[in-house]
Amino acid sequence: MDDVVVDIAERPDLVEPVLIEGLPGVGNVGKIGVDHLVDVLGAVPFATIRSVHLPAQVMVDGNGVATMVSLRLFHHRRAGGDIVFLCGDFQAVDHAGQYALAEAVLDICSDLGVRSVYTLGGYSVGHFVEGPRVFAAVNSPDLVGWVRGFDVVVGEGEPGGGIVGASGLLLGLGGLRGMRGVCLMGETHGYIADPASARAVLEVLKSMLGLEADLDDLDRKAVEVERLTTQIRDLADLLEKGDGDEVGYIR
Amino acid sequence: MDDVVVDIAERPDLVEPVLIEGLPGVGNVGKIGVDHLVDVLGAVPFATIRSVHLPAQVMVDGNGVATMVSLRLFHHRRAGGDIVFLCGDFQAVDHAGQYALAEAVLDICSDLGVRSVYTLGGYSVGHFVEGPRVFAAVNSPDLVGWVRGFDVVVGEGEPGGGIVGASGLLLGLGGLRGMRGVCLMGETHGYIADPASARAVLEVLKSMLGLEADLDDLDRKAVEVERLTTQIRDLADLLEKGDGDEVGYIR
Amino acid sequence: MDDVVVDIAERPDLVEPVLIEGLPGVGNVGKIGVDHLVDVLGAVPFATIRSVHLPAQVMVDGNGVATMVSLRLFHHRRAGGDIVFLCGDFQAVDHAGQYALAEAVLDICSDLGVRSVYTLGGYSVGHFVEGPRVFAAVNSPDLVGWVRGFDVVVGEGEPGGGIVGASGLLLGLGGLRGMRGVCLMGETHGYIADPASARAVLEVLKSMLGLEADLDDLDRKAVEVERLTTQIRDLADLLEKGDGDEVGYIR
Amino acid sequence: MDDVVVDIAERPDLVEPVLIEGLPGVGNVGKIGVDHLVDVLGAVPFATIRSVHLPAQVMVDGNGVATMVSLRLFHHRRAGGDIVFLCGDFQAVDHAGQYALAEAVLDICSDLGVRSVYTLGGYSVGHFVEGPRVFAAVNSPDLVGWVRGFDVVVGEGEPGGGIVGASGLLLGLGGLRGMRGVCLMGETHGYIADPASARAVLEVLKSMLGLEADLDDLDRKAVEVERLTTQIRDLADLLEKGDGDEVGYIR
Repeated sequence: MDDVVVDIAERPDLVEPVLIEGLPGVGNVGKIGVDHLVDVLGAVPFATIRSVHLPAQVMVDGNGVATMVSLRLFHHRRAGGDIVFLCGDFQAVDHAGQYALAEAVLDICSDLGVRSVYTLGGYSVGHFVEGPRVFAAVNSPDLVGWVRGFDVVVGEGEPGGGIVGASGLLLGLGGLRGMRGVCLMGETHGYIADPASARAVLEVLKSMLGLEADLDDLDRKAVEVERLTTQIRDLADLLEKGDGDEVGYIR
Repeated sequence: MDDVVVDIAERPDLVEPVLIEGLPGVGNVGKIGVDHLVDVLGAVPFATIRSVHLPAQVMVDGNGVATMVSLRLFHHRRAGGDIVFLCGDFQAVDHAGQYALAEAVLDICSDLGVRSVYTLGGYSVGHFVEGPRVFAAVNSPDLVGWVRGFDVVVGEGEPGGGIVGASGLLLGLGGLRGMRGVCLMGETHGYIADPASARAVLEVLKSMLGLEADLDDLDRKAVEVERLTTQIRDLADLLEKGDGDEVGYIR
Repeated sequence: MDDVVVDIAERPDLVEPVLIEGLPGVGNVGKIGVDHLVDVLGAVPFATIRSVHLPAQVMVDGNGVATMVSLRLFHHRRAGGDIVFLCGDFQAVDHAGQYALAEAVLDICSDLGVRSVYTLGGYSVGHFVEGPRVFAAVNSPDLVGWVRGFDVVVGEGEPGGGIVGASGLLLGLGGLRGMRGVCLMGETHGYIADPASARAVLEVLKSMLGLEADLDDLDRKAVEVERLTTQIRDLADLLEKGDGDEVGYIR
Repeated sequence: MDDVVVDIAERPDLVEPVLIEGLPGVGNVGKIGVDHLVDVLGAVPFATIRSVHLPAQVMVDGNGVATMVSLRLFHHRRAGGDIVFLCGDFQAVDHAGQYALAEAVLDICSDLGVRSVYTLGGYSVGHFVEGPRVFAAVNSPDLVGWVRGFDVVVGEGEPGGGIVGASGLLLGLGGLRGMRGVCLMGETHGYIADPASARAVLEVLKSMLGLEADLDDLDRKAVEVERLTTQIRDLADLLEKGDGDEVGYIR
């Protein structure tokens, strides 16, 4: 097996497509967002990427059917500009694999005529956030002015540590190929899957692309996560403030 | 040395063989099960796989004789369909090695005409289990109905995290080669070698393959493990409940 | 993508240049020192090295513009002998990558006629140091006498554990190519970026090369770090010595 | 740079040489033993092995001179059969590197006509040992009887977990090339360099090879280590048994 195996079921003929990436990461913000778009837009799967740089495992679905872990590409045709979506079960397990998979994705995208890359992710702040902000980074100085026109935080020293993983590499390596790149990062706790942060990121993305997409389902998921995290916070408060008996009882 | 070195002593001529895999893993369920079958069926060794992806060490037997760690293939001829067994001292030490070794095994199996793969393993539940259940996964939707006819749990969201390692990869990569694949996972504590769970898995496997094999020795080993774990649990209980003097005494 | 990608914008024509390396490491002494020299001397960037052995990420600048992590080479022409500077965001993430990047740098340097290598770093002593000493190591016995003529500690069993990373490899691998090599290590706490230690190292380097360079900005940074570490030490003292009420208050 | 670089200064012409390996490991028993033999026998260095699988660092000697980490081969001619010694600063940092370096050593040895391999190491028992035993393992059943003729423990279920690293691989991979192999492991605490254990191993080796070599220096080192460990044990006893005041004082 080669290090990266690309299996293109049928090469779609797309008009000026953009790539939108959302792989697992901080708060799973990118993955939740892009999986949602693929779902509500009914995007069409057309390519699978398997690799020795992905975990050595299969995923098992609700019927007990196992499938190799992979990255998957979908396409969606629309008047305002076609879209290629990058989804997947995992990011690469090692640095070299991150590079190899990003290059493989960019090879496919170059062939499809992709000129712009949007990468979605979370930005961990370590605490719960009401009304998460969206941080943005670009891969060329001439994009700074444009992104400032949207409801994002850009260029105030955030994110300080750079952008790690696929969202960073597709921006950086895409730029070396002459692709415009924007990374949108939703503020998030970091330890908990965060549909509300994904929604905030998608709102910005919709504005940037003039994209129509129903986000109600993310609201429903966000309410559910909010309910669960409130329970956890109440429990944590109780454990912290409670007297000996209460703590003993909870244990 | 190549990354994977396959040494086939003599290529057996087999009729519609199935592969049965049992390498070290959770509760060592798969390894205990397949090593037992190889033993009681008197299966014949015919191939050795060595690799830089296996630990850099030798095993030393009871006479002080050292042998390179390896995967080993055995064959067993029988009326109901020949069998190839995959045994070994270790799984690969890295993800890329897991892929490389699984592909090497599948290459040999393809050459021998293997069309079905059975992978055996444990499913860790973190506590002791009376009458362990056997979870099943398959690598094709059309196998779901068939496995439901046996005494297994299939498709109820278990195993949630996928199947990691050789048992998963042989299923997934085998499926990409058109092989039917079934993974049987015996419920087990996870921290202790579990012959009882291996026995439960082999009971299902025997039904599936119409295989005759004496499992009494596993019963004896299970009784011994049961005796040891009961001692450990009693000791743990004593340490937890005991007053200061008792604890001091045990120490 | 190849494992190491060298992008030389324009090959400079240099006279008997020396290489001065300062990559991230203990107390960031080397990086602070070389980044400072590049800055005050107005050295000219001429080459970029990207690699799968560097972290899979982009750096984001103050304007929100992302750039692939890289090593960067600068040159500086002067009467006393030209200089090539090696700067970068990271060292390689694995041992093999350390070798690959060091060889790539040495390949470029060989082509430019570099005959001497100066590598800068920190030497962790685990406590705060007033007036940090500078330890030196060389890659050839005939350099020992020469370095002893400067204000350095050399050959008294320090550094005991060898020199790890780029500073060590450029010395060792450069020596195998016939390059003279000197490593200068500034005494430093190890946990805190240390401009004072970088200044001490640069003072020695200036003597060795007859180099003119203003170090005042490092003094300013050292004062700032001194102020911060004093605050931290005071706080630590307070926490250690303080009674219950005080500690409670600080928390 | 290739993964493994072999630099043979001058290929020695040897008569039926044996290889004796002693690299860093448990209690540094093998390294202490072989370094001692090289020293007292005045063995002659003839080859250096460098590799990306060794740590990315240089060693610095007492004069401040840095040298690339390496494995080194020495030869020693004598009436009873010539000897090749394998010494080094480190073992490989990864499993694949262990295989690569062992194969490189065996390639050189095959070329020199080596037919027997003796690997030396420590066997960790986790406590201090008076009169350490020497455990032996061989790479062929027909050697068991012969090693039983010496003052060693062989084939009583020790070492249970196999032999890890160079001592194991040279035995195992050497065996696949038809070389006879014996591993001698000196009982040792495991956390402390152990010249006494190295001496015990060398006594057995001297008997096996009819080798003359003065071991007095190891005795001196063993006395020094004994003195230090006794101090440590006394201190540990004091800390454990001491009342509050004493403990406070020692702290």
